[in-house]
Amino acid sequence: SVDTTPIRATLFPGDGIGPEIAESVKKVFTEADVHIDWDEHYVGTEIDPRTQSFLTWESLESVRQNKIGLKGPMATPIGKGHRSLNLTLRKELNLYANVRPCYSLPGYKTRYDNVDLVTIRENTEGEYSGLEHQVVRGVVESLKIITRQASLRVAEYAFHYAKAHGRERVSAIHKANIMQKTDGLFLKCCREVAEKYPEIKYEEVVIDNCCMMLVKNPALFDVLVMPNLYGDIISDLCAGLIGGLGLTPSCNIGEGGIALAEAVHGSAPDIAGKNMANPTALLLSAVTMLRHLELHDKADRIQDAILKTIAEGKYRTADLGGSSTTTDFTKAICDHL
Amino acid sequence: SVDTTPIRATLFPGDGIGPEIAESVKKVFTEADVHIDWDEHYVGTEIDPRTQSFLTWESLESVRQNKIGLKGPMATPIGKGHRSLNLTLRKELNLYANVRPCYSLPGYKTRYDNVDLVTIRENTEGEYSGLEHQVVRGVVESLKIITRQASLRVAEYAFHYAKAHGRERVSAIHKANIMQKTDGLFLKCCREVAEKYPEIKYEEVVIDNCCMMLVKNPALFDVLVMPNLYGDIISDLCAGLIGGLGLTPSCNIGEGGIALAEAVHGSAPDIAGKNMANPTALLLSAVTMLRHLELHDKADRIQDAILKTIAEGKYRTADLGGSSTTTDFTKAICDHL
Ligand SMILES: CC(C)[C@H](C(=O)O)[C@@H](O)C(=O)O
Ligand SMILES: CC(C)[C@H](C(=O)O)[C@@H](O)C(=O)O
Repeated sequence: SVDTTPIRATLFPGDGIGPEIAESVKKVFTEADVHIDWDEHYVGTEIDPRTQSFLTWESLESVRQNKIGLKGPMATPIGKGHRSLNLTLRKELNLYANVRPCYSLPGYKTRYDNVDLVTIRENTEGEYSGLEHQVVRGVVESLKIITRQASLRVAEYAFHYAKAHGRERVSAIHKANIMQKTDGLFLKCCREVAEKYPEIKYEEVVIDNCCMMLVKNPALFDVLVMPNLYGDIISDLCAGLIGGLGLTPSCNIGEGGIALAEAVHGSAPDIAGKNMANPTALLLSAVTMLRHLELHDKADRIQDAILKTIAEGKYRTADLGGSSTTTDFTKAICDHL
Repeated sequence: SVDTTPIRATLFPGDGIGPEIAESVKKVFTEADVHIDWDEHYVGTEIDPRTQSFLTWESLESVRQNKIGLKGPMATPIGKGHRSLNLTLRKELNLYANVRPCYSLPGYKTRYDNVDLVTIRENTEGEYSGLEHQVVRGVVESLKIITRQASLRVAEYAFHYAKAHGRERVSAIHKANIMQKTDGLFLKCCREVAEKYPEIKYEEVVIDNCCMMLVKNPALFDVLVMPNLYGDIISDLCAGLIGGLGLTPSCNIGEGGIALAEAVHGSAPDIAGKNMANPTALLLSAVTMLRHLELHDKADRIQDAILKTIAEGKYRTADLGGSSTTTDFTKAICDHL
């Protein structure tokens, strides 16, 4: 007898194209017999008229309870005093690692055909401290904070991930030749953790050199771990290698086993509601959610169906040069299941 | 009658392969009838036995007097208390802008064939302040400093450069969505300067998105101006697009019209003295030096000879997949003059 007790997972469809691509995930999951009881909450740029809120306590609590969730794109509410909702979620839920697998999609041609790497980004501190001030008129400073605790935590996650996914090498990306104390501490923590994983190769690469090597030969890299801003930059660079943010999954890992998968592309308000959006990034993010739940068979099946649909090229959305609707593309994936 | 009064220019051959590639520049300049009285100084990793110094006051004074110079690669002296010589020169000579033209070399195939952009990097402050400290055990911070003065100065230079070189657009690269005050001030200064150049298009691009766009389609960019660390990262990324740091020139601009051109690749101690080094980056840097002196005809002639030699592909050094010596490659360039 098959266990069909649904797993309860939080869903934040988000702004713009969010609801449409979230619909696509639901359809594909249903078709693949993945039973999720979606605990759906509105978090986004518009004030919810029922709650007068952009982000309710209940939404946060839902992720804390379910420990697993999926989020669509969220724009930053306009007006002073609001920090990005993406950052607020990271902060409130203590989502300390952002994991982005990035691999060439068979049949979708870019300049690179050999990309298969994973960026693991420290997601809570560094240049994102929010600590900035004017020292005197015309002189401003911002603080980059690196702590031993957060650095060890993300390094642990990176090595754990590398081992669990059969990966060979972890590269720590840094600029410790300039920021000797901050990036130096980050490296020190990575080295400490590396010693506990003798089976995983460890190396350190300066960020400027890393970016040069990535565009020359991305096959040189496997798992990359790095402070917040470098992760922001390098994960987007890597996404560019294989076609852009519309194709790359992302998952945020928090304390206590929380995982919040997310599509990191924008909310594309210009095409919202037009059945034109590409659901691939959110679908592949949902797949990383299944992997986090150790539902690898289901994850493989869905991922294969997505990749096959893209490889065939018959159904592609406008951003990939096709003219399929979101629903037709989704249906094609379902047909491949 | 032709003016053959030699121009006095400082030359720091530097470490490792530095002397060999500097020799190549001298030969090519002589062959092209460019009369330079090279005021040569040793600055590098080894203590000069005559002066017991890595870097003498006379070396700095030479650049200040001549206002024009060329430097080879310099490694960082090993041992505590020494900051990188590259950084020391930037600081002592107030070299506030680092200019790196980056263009596809005809006949030298990479994944990109349409690169033609220039990165202009603020070179004195930002994340390179050197201000770092431990707050409490396990918590360190570094200060990023952005000033109105340095931001206006580099923005002015970028627009001036764009206009003087017939370029259409300046893109300011930033992360002001996170660092609102520091990168915000940088952008504010760029906007102020942009208003004085209505004929040059101006745009602002977030650094993560910029990196993604650069690897997808570098032809989208023209002149890019940015704070120090972003410039460090993006200029190396761009070098990667066209083949690496062995092929890209660089020039540092200081107050009072000082220009110090430099090869930004490493000193390659493994091949030093073996007549194997590729002098292209230093040669092209020397060309930017001539452009700074407004000797455009000479600059064009030398640049053409370098590009032709590379395009023909008969003489290429090992780093470009060939087996030519430095001297044979240099001779081939001279033959094209
Ligand atoms: C939207 C922005 C604040 C965010 C970041 O800088 O982290 C985004 O670029 C990302 O990577 O999720
Ligand atoms: C060597 C290093 C200190 C230097 C820098 O970070 O500026 C280098 O990467 C450069 O770009 O000149």
